[in-house]
Amino acid sequence: MQEVPERYRLFGNRGLVANLSCDEIDPQCHALGAGNKLIIATSPLDGLGVSSTGRLSVGGKSPLTGGIKEANAGGVAATKLVRHGIKAIIVEGMPQTAELSVLHIGNGRAELRPAASLMGKGTYEVADLVYKEFGKNVGLITIGPAGEYRLGSAGVFVNGTNGDPSRAAARGGMGAVMAAKGLKAVVIEGDGNFKPPVQDMKAFREARKSFTQAILEEPTIKVYKEYGTMGVLMTLNGLSAMPTFGYRKGTWDLAEQISGDQLHDLILSRGGEGSITHKCMDVCIIQCSNVVPDQNGKRVVAPLEYECTALLGANLGIADLDEIASITRLCNDIGVDGIEMGAALGVAADAGVLKFGEPERVRELIRQVGAGTVLGRVLGSGANVTGRTFGMVRVPVVKGQAMAGHEPRGLKGMSVTYAKSTMGADHTAAPTFRAQMDHRKPEGQMKISRDIQVIMAFYDNFCCMFVSRALTGKLNIMMDMINAIYGTNLGADYATRLGKEIIKLERAFNTSAGVTEEYVPEFMRSEGIEPYGILSDIPQGDYDRFWEESFWGKPIDLKRSALNR
Amino acid sequence: MQEVPERYRLFGNRGLVANLSCDEIDPQCHALGAGNKLIIATSPLDGLGVSSTGRLSVGGKSPLTGGIKEANAGGVAATKLVRHGIKAIIVEGMPQTAELSVLHIGNGRAELRPAASLMGKGTYEVADLVYKEFGKNVGLITIGPAGEYRLGSAGVFVNGTNGDPSRAAARGGMGAVMAAKGLKAVVIEGDGNFKPPVQDMKAFREARKSFTQAILEEPTIKVYKEYGTMGVLMTLNGLSAMPTFGYRKGTWDLAEQISGDQLHDLILSRGGEGSITHKCMDVCIIQCSNVVPDQNGKRVVAPLEYECTALLGANLGIADLDEIASITRLCNDIGVDGIEMGAALGVAADAGVLKFGEPERVRELIRQVGAGTVLGRVLGSGANVTGRTFGMVRVPVVKGQAMAGHEPRGLKGMSVTYAKSTMGADHTAAPTFRAQMDHRKPEGQMKISRDIQVIMAFYDNFCCMFVSRALTGKLNIMMDMINAIYGTNLGADYATRLGKEIIKLERAFNTSAGVTEEYVPEFMRSEGIEPYGILSDIPQGDYDRFWEESFWGKPIDLKRSALNR
Repeated sequence: MQEVPERYRLFGNRGLVANLSCDEIDPQCHALGAGNKLIIATSPLDGLGVSSTGRLSVGGKSPLTGGIKEANAGGVAATKLVRHGIKAIIVEGMPQTAELSVLHIGNGRAELRPAASLMGKGTYEVADLVYKEFGKNVGLITIGPAGEYRLGSAGVFVNGTNGDPSRAAARGGMGAVMAAKGLKAVVIEGDGNFKPPVQDMKAFREARKSFTQAILEEPTIKVYKEYGTMGVLMTLNGLSAMPTFGYRKGTWDLAEQISGDQLHDLILSRGGEGSITHKCMDVCIIQCSNVVPDQNGKRVVAPLEYECTALLGANLGIADLDEIASITRLCNDIGVDGIEMGAALGVAADAGVLKFGEPERVRELIRQVGAGTVLGRVLGSGANVTGRTFGMVRVPVVKGQAMAGHEPRGLKGMSVTYAKSTMGADHTAAPTFRAQMDHRKPEGQMKISRDIQVIMAFYDNFCCMFVSRALTGKLNIMMDMINAIYGTNLGADYATRLGKEIIKLERAFNTSAGVTEEYVPEFMRSEGIEPYGILSDIPQGDYDRFWEESFWGKPIDLKRSALNR
Repeated sequence: MQEVPERYRLFGNRGLVANLSCDEIDPQCHALGAGNKLIIATSPLDGLGVSSTGRLSVGGKSPLTGGIKEANAGGVAATKLVRHGIKAIIVEGMPQTAELSVLHIGNGRAELRPAASLMGKGTYEVADLVYKEFGKNVGLITIGPAGEYRLGSAGVFVNGTNGDPSRAAARGGMGAVMAAKGLKAVVIEGDGNFKPPVQDMKAFREARKSFTQAILEEPTIKVYKEYGTMGVLMTLNGLSAMPTFGYRKGTWDLAEQISGDQLHDLILSRGGEGSITHKCMDVCIIQCSNVVPDQNGKRVVAPLEYECTALLGANLGIADLDEIASITRLCNDIGVDGIEMGAALGVAADAGVLKFGEPERVRELIRQVGAGTVLGRVLGSGANVTGRTFGMVRVPVVKGQAMAGHEPRGLKGMSVTYAKSTMGADHTAAPTFRAQMDHRKPEGQMKISRDIQVIMAFYDNFCCMFVSRALTGKLNIMMDMINAIYGTNLGADYATRLGKEIIKLERAFNTSAGVTEEYVPEFMRSEGIEPYGILSDIPQGDYDRFWEESFWGKPIDLKRSALNR
C-alpha cells in the first residue's frame, strides 16, 4: 500500500495508466516479462455518486501492439476499489511458479491466495465459484483460459450489476499481462467505507445535479438507453462502415436482421430475464447495456453491443442475433476480445479455416481458443498473428491490433483515428461518425479525428466516453464538479490541455518502445469497400501534419521526463 | 526490359536493393501485397572474373520485420544473369491466380511459364526437375513449400556450383514475397554473352590481380578455406556467444563435438562426395563452403555452416554433426531460413512443443512446416509468431527477426548490431567478434558495431562480406578496380560514404514504414547467459547516440528524396 502522490491526484483511468506507465514501466520490456506492470486504475470522480464514473481501467504495455494500452470496462469493481480507499493497483514482477493467484481485497487487507480451484475455468464459472465462496456482493476482475494462455486477444473481465463477468476491458491483450503477473482474478469483498474527500460539498452537489440533468436531457443518450450501442448499427451500415464478410462490404443487405430495432423488439417479445436497458455500473443513468434472453427468456449475454455484432456477426457473415449473442457469450467466457476474435476469424475465413456464415464452426473455433489447441492459440493471438500464420494480405490491423466495427473506408475519419491513435485500431480513441460532415470526403478528417481524440482522452480520464455527448458545449459542468471536489480552479480549457497531455505521454511511451507505425493496411487503400467502392484515401500530408507542434506543443521525451520527476 | 539508369550504375546487391526499395516501394504497403516488389540484384563487379562477386541479392519489404530487407546468397545464378545483360530483376504487382509461375530467361527473352509441375515441391526436387528439362547448366532461384505458404521464415534458394539449391538468401521471409509475386522459380538458361564494359582494361587487370593476391595472402581466409564458417564455432563458444538450449547458454561443454575441427575430420575421414572446401560461386577463391557426406560418403548438405550448426544444433541441444547436417538439408528443402527455424524451435521447446536434444522431433516439426499444418505454419512464421502463439517471453528477436548465432550477451557488440541494424537481428550487418577488444565490456561496442556496419554495407554492395578481411587497410585495391571499370576517380573514403548512404536509405525506408524498435529483448538484459552470467548491458546513451548526425550527416527523408529524383 502506498499513498497517492500529489501529482497523480487529478489523474484517473486512462490518464493514470499513461502516467504510471511512463513513470514505472521500461517501454523496451517484453509485455509478458518482469519489466511490465499491470495497472488497474479508477476515476478521480468515482465513489461520489457521479453517474458513469465507475470505469475500471486496465493498462500497461500491450502484448498485441507492443505499445501502451489502456482498456476499460464498467461493472461494479472500480467503485468497490474506491470505497476501499484504493485508487489504483499496480502489479509488478513475475511469479516464479505457473500457478496463478487471486488477489483478495477486504477488511483493510490485500493478500494473494492460490487460484488453483479457478485455473482453466471460463469467466462465468469463475464468477459462480467466487460468489459461492464470498457471496454476490463482490467486485470481480478476472481472466478466462485465453488469458491463462497469454494470448494477444485476451481481455480482462469485470462483473456487472447483474453478476455476469461480461464487462470487458477487452482490447490489447491485457488479460495476458494479468496472467503474466500471476493473477487469475481480483476479488474485492465488502462495500468499503472510504468516501473520497470533497472540498466544497455544496458546489459539488450542485454540479453533480447539473451533470445528471445534462445527461438526462441529451437526445442521443435516450436512444442509448433504449437501443444501447446497437442503435448505431443501421447508421454505420448506411455509411458503408459496418465490416462485413472479412472487411469486404460496409453495407449489408441483411443488416436489418441484426439491427438495434431488431434486437430491441426481440428482447421485448421474449421477456423473461431480457431487458432492453441495463446499467453496467451501479451509478449510471445512461444504462446503455442490455440483457439478451434466449427463446425461453433465459439470459444469454449482457450486453450484446454493436462491436461484437459487427465483428462476430456481419464480419463473419452471420445475420442471426441469437447466434451472435451466443458467440459473444462464448468470447466472454473464454476471455477474449470479441473485436479481435471476429477480425481474426475473418482473416481465417479468407485462409479457408472456416466459411462465412457458419456460426457453429465459429463456436467450435472459439472453443479451440479456450482449449489451447495450436489453431486456437493462433486465432486467440489476434488478427495479425492469424494473418502471418496463414500468409494473408487482407489483415485489418493497425499496430498489430484489429480494427473495430467502424470501417475506415466508408467512415474515413476512422482512417485517421486508427492510424494515429496511440493504442492501435481502437474506435474509442475517436469515433467520428457523429461529426456533421461528409464521411466519404478525405478532406478534414484529420482535424476532426484529432480533436475528438483529444477530448476523448479527457473523458477517458474521468468517466464513460458516452458522457461526452451530454457535455458538448457544457464542459463547465464537469469543471465545476472537479473544482468542487479537488479545490482546484480549472477552466474548460483544461479538457484539451489534459487530453493532449495524456496522448503525448502515451506517444512518448510508444516512441521509446519503438512503436510508431501509423497507417491503415494497404488493402484498404487499394480495394474499394463494397458496395460503393470507397477507399481509405486521407491525404498523406494530413497524416504527416497530425503531430504538428503548433497543435500539440513540444513532444514529451520520456527519458528526460522520467529523470525530472 | 529497361535500361539501367545512370544513377544506379555503381549500386549493386544491397545498395541497389536499398535504392530501388526507396524509389519504387511504398514503405506502408503490405509485404505480401501488390505494393511490394521483389528485387533480385547483382554486383557491379560481377561478370568480370573478380573473385567473390557473384552474390545474388533478394530484397524488398520484409514480411518478417515490416522493414526493408536484403538477403544474399552465392550460387551460380547471379553471374548468369549478368552474362545475360541483366543487372536486376524487379517483380511487381500481384498475380490474379494462386498458380505460381517460372520466370524463364534465355535466348534474349524473359517469359513466365506455368510452374504447375513444381508446385509443392522441395527445392532439391525442383532442382532435379529443372535440370531434367533444361540441363544442368542453368541458374536456378527457387522457393520451397514454406515460400508457397508465404511464411515469414521462407528463404530464396539458389543453385550452387555442384547443383544443390542450397545457397540461401535466407533471411527476412523473401521466399514468401517471391510467392506473393507469383513466382516459384527463376531459371536462367544458357551462359549469355554479355561482357560488362571496362573503361581501362589494363588497370582493371592489375587491380584484379592485387585483389586476388590480397585474398590469398590473408591468414583468416586460409582458415575459411579449410574450415569454412565452422572455424569460428569454438571462438564464439569461448566467448560465451554460441546460443545453446534456447539462448540459455553461450558456452557448451559439448561444443567440441560440433566444432570446425570435428567437421573437418569427419568429412576427410568419410571421403566420397564430401569435401572440406567448396566454392559456392564460380569465381571465388575463398571457397569457404563444404560438402558434408553421410557415412557412405553420399552428399547430405553443402554447406553446413556455423549459423545452422549453432541454431539447429546447439540451440536445440543437439551435439551431433550428422543430425545437424540432415536437419539443415531439410530446412533447405522445405525452403526455410535455418537461423529463424532454429530460433523458433528453441522458443517452441520452451513452450513444451519439443524437448531439447530431439533431432527426430525437430525433423518431424520441420516436415510439418513443409506440409503446412497449423503448427508447421506457426513455426515457419518464425520465432516472433511462435512466441506470440505460445505466450512466451524469452523470444530472441529484434524487429521480429530471430538473432543469429552470435549471442549478444557474451559478444556484446552484437547487442548493438542486432538492435540498430536496419534489417533486424542479422549478424552479417556487423559481426564484431574479430574486433580486438574485450567483448564482455559494454563500453565501446556501439562505435565498433557502427563502424563495421558501415563498412559491411559497402562490401554488401559489391561482393561477399568475407572479402573485407583481406582488404583491411587495402581499400585502394577495391577502388582501383571500380575506377578502372567505371572510369570513376573514387578514393578510399568512398567506402564509408557509400556504406553510410546505403544504411541511411534503408533507415529512411524503415522510418516511413513505421519500423523503429531498436533494442535487444528484455530477457537478455535481465537474465545472464550461462555459464558466466553475462548480460546485454550496452549503456542506453550509446544506443541513443548511434544515429548521431555528427557521424551520419542528415538523415534521408524518403518523401522528399523520392520527389527530388
